[in-house]
Amino acid sequence: MCRHANLVFFVRFIFSPALFDNFRNMIASTPTPPYYAVIFTSVRTEGDNGYEEMSERMVQLAQQQPGYLGHESARQDIGITVSYWESLDAIKKWKMNAEHLLAQKEGKKQWYARYKVRICFVERDYEFDNE
Amino acid sequence: MCRHANLVFFVRFIFSPALFDNFRNMIASTPTPPYYAVIFTSVRTEGDNGYEEMSERMVQLAQQQPGYLGHESARQDIGITVSYWESLDAIKKWKMNAEHLLAQKEGKKQWYARYKVRICFVERDYEFDNE
Repeated sequence: MCRHANLVFFVRFIFSPALFDNFRNMIASTPTPPYYAVIFTSVRTEGDNGYEEMSERMVQLAQQQPGYLGHESARQDIGITVSYWESLDAIKKWKMNAEHLLAQKEGKKQWYARYKVRICFVERDYEFDNE
Repeated sequence: MCRHANLVFFVRFIFSPALFDNFRNMIASTPTPPYYAVIFTSVRTEGDNGYEEMSERMVQLAQQQPGYLGHESARQDIGITVSYWESLDAIKKWKMNAEHLLAQKEGKKQWYARYKVRICFVERDYEFDNE
């Protein structure tokens, strides 16, 4: 058996259509505008300190909120997370969610060196798909 | 001389306050709202094919446009680039810029598997800085 079998499998997996479709789906399938977006841009502190766990929990929790439409996230030097919402009221209720309030407090205490939040009204959208 | 001198220098550089400040500055210093945001979320095709060079050129070019206020960018599985503008007219003129039109055409032809563009009115913002 080829000694690189595991590597070949891994590379095939990485470039498989299935995984590619996962990335494809990571663009939020939002409804026709208008709706709202919250752009959260952040610089992390060093070390994890429970950040990843909290981050996953907040995504789970946000998805259960009334008026949640989807989210998109990427971190390279800075992190950008955009969440999409039906109304300003839905955004306000999510901001005031008890568990989310705790995460915001910890965020200021240990996870973030800096962040900026922008509340936006999405007026128009368009998309491209090469399939 | 320590054989790990280069490594030590590199690690010091990576965690240096100077570099950290660069990340800090990668959150766009936008003026008090209202203003506009264009959220560009994308899935890349495989390979570079001139993408990085075009991407840097487009940032340079956007910065020269009237009404440009700043931009933020991160790519992990998906890419998110948010550019900020004074008005819808400024966004429209940037979209119709001749060199940008060529890049958009090439983008559909070879660089992007999928993308979504959302035009937003930024109503409100707030920020946190632990300094």
